[in-house]
Amino acid sequence: MIRIVEVGPRDGLQNEPTPIPPEEKLAFIQRLRDAGLVEIEATSLVSPKWVPQLGDAETLWPQLPAGGLYSALVPNAKGLERAVSLGVKRIALFTAASDAFTQKNINMTVAQSLEVFAEVAAAFRAQVPDGWLRGYVSTAFECPFAGRVDPEATVSVASELLKIGCDEISIGDTIGVAAPVEVKRLTPLLASAVPLDKLNYHFHDTRGTAIANVAQALEQGVRSFDSSAGGLGGCPYAPGAGGNLATEDLVYFLERSGFATGLEPLRLAQASLPILEQLGRPPASKAQRAALAALPQTQ
Amino acid sequence: MIRIVEVGPRDGLQNEPTPIPPEEKLAFIQRLRDAGLVEIEATSLVSPKWVPQLGDAETLWPQLPAGGLYSALVPNAKGLERAVSLGVKRIALFTAASDAFTQKNINMTVAQSLEVFAEVAAAFRAQVPDGWLRGYVSTAFECPFAGRVDPEATVSVASELLKIGCDEISIGDTIGVAAPVEVKRLTPLLASAVPLDKLNYHFHDTRGTAIANVAQALEQGVRSFDSSAGGLGGCPYAPGAGGNLATEDLVYFLERSGFATGLEPLRLAQASLPILEQLGRPPASKAQRAALAALPQTQ
Repeated sequence: MIRIVEVGPRDGLQNEPTPIPPEEKLAFIQRLRDAGLVEIEATSLVSPKWVPQLGDAETLWPQLPAGGLYSALVPNAKGLERAVSLGVKRIALFTAASDAFTQKNINMTVAQSLEVFAEVAAAFRAQVPDGWLRGYVSTAFECPFAGRVDPEATVSVASELLKIGCDEISIGDTIGVAAPVEVKRLTPLLASAVPLDKLNYHFHDTRGTAIANVAQALEQGVRSFDSSAGGLGGCPYAPGAGGNLATEDLVYFLERSGFATGLEPLRLAQASLPILEQLGRPPASKAQRAALAALPQTQ
Repeated sequence: MIRIVEVGPRDGLQNEPTPIPPEEKLAFIQRLRDAGLVEIEATSLVSPKWVPQLGDAETLWPQLPAGGLYSALVPNAKGLERAVSLGVKRIALFTAASDAFTQKNINMTVAQSLEVFAEVAAAFRAQVPDGWLRGYVSTAFECPFAGRVDPEATVSVASELLKIGCDEISIGDTIGVAAPVEVKRLTPLLASAVPLDKLNYHFHDTRGTAIANVAQALEQGVRSFDSSAGGLGGCPYAPGAGGNLATEDLVYFLERSGFATGLEPLRLAQASLPILEQLGRPPASKAQRAALAALPQTQ
């Protein structure tokens, strides 16, 4: 069984300047649930000053559709406080394998971020004993500011996140540059530090390599992948370029490869359409466009 | 060394209803040459009644930029006559692994097409002793009318094309449905009938799996791939959906994987833009969009 973690509502929307009201987000999440998705990163508890698009967590969270396993990004102690007040049971901590990236993105070195997160993780465990904790290692292959990343740097950060108590480590090709040969090199190194069943890959499809990377990771035994419905989430460092791996492309590939996902491709293809329309973006997913093109009413 | 056969001017344009004048096609082919592409399928000698877009072969061919290895699709004896008059040295014959497809597409069964092509191939060899002959096996994985195709059917047609004297067999995922697991199954069967160095894959990226399929074919030892600049060539059976694997995506993937292509990615990314503009289509290639997004003047 392959785990798919849907990150559209958080990672897909966070950089979009067009404000999406909370009721639209809730309807989007409901459609994702209706398509069969269970694990959904729903929002971020970062300061609304930094990410206004996700400033509505307090409105959104209590209204999330029943039955989903929702998570929220938590950047610091203040974010954890908000998470605990909201009853959030699943949180994600976001750091990177490159100091240049964390400095620009979260205004700390990687080491500083790990110190902060060790405290956040401990506080979360104390207050939410049945909680679930994800650690992100972004720029795992390459940093937009510092270039190629040494696999050992990525493994080291993943290992540290495991030590502070993460239940899962998500390895991100944040700018969507990696080729399968890099996944083949990195994965066994990661697996020597992190049990395979705690490893997740978060690929971006900015240059069309994401599915090939998933295929390689599957061969290496990884069974958990992030994706974003409709490919929501352009890359801020390459305007006009694609961002997150689209959930539709991932699901098509998995199903055709013989891995059941339990998802409904047509409902999935339609789930992001109202949001894409509000953002003025065409569907970025090829499998989604193919599924929609097969519908008489959308031709 | 990986061979890339650029099929944009033929396969990419043939289904486009907006007429592109020959001088625009020549400028396009010049830009492809400037980006470093050598092997280019430039046109088809099918009747202009059937494919009006490519009805200008007699105007186009004598003006093709120097230094390229150009080929033309030849559907029958009449097409061969035109090819020989034009001095065409490289021709391609187009059949499929599915009778339902050839019936709709070329109005013959597969067996009938092989009979016709045996005569065309013999006549070509007699008249153009130093000529080069490609055979296409389309719908190699699945037919839009008859469903999944038995790998043995594909191997059988490939084998027959080899017997009638083809120098190369191009295996097409015409509707862009295949996953790497299918490439992994088919390729060794093909390789038992056709020497690996005579095998080429022609993937379509309709559902985002093309690069993953290339990756798998590379692992199986295949070293020749078709692609289309800018992803030109929508699939007529899935309006709105993507078609041919984009040359930009292929080149990005190969270079990042350590295979030198000798091509210039930026020139390549720009090569199809004037045609795409005339057709009113956005660039379909993710690597192309990423390359263009990095250019200040195109943001």
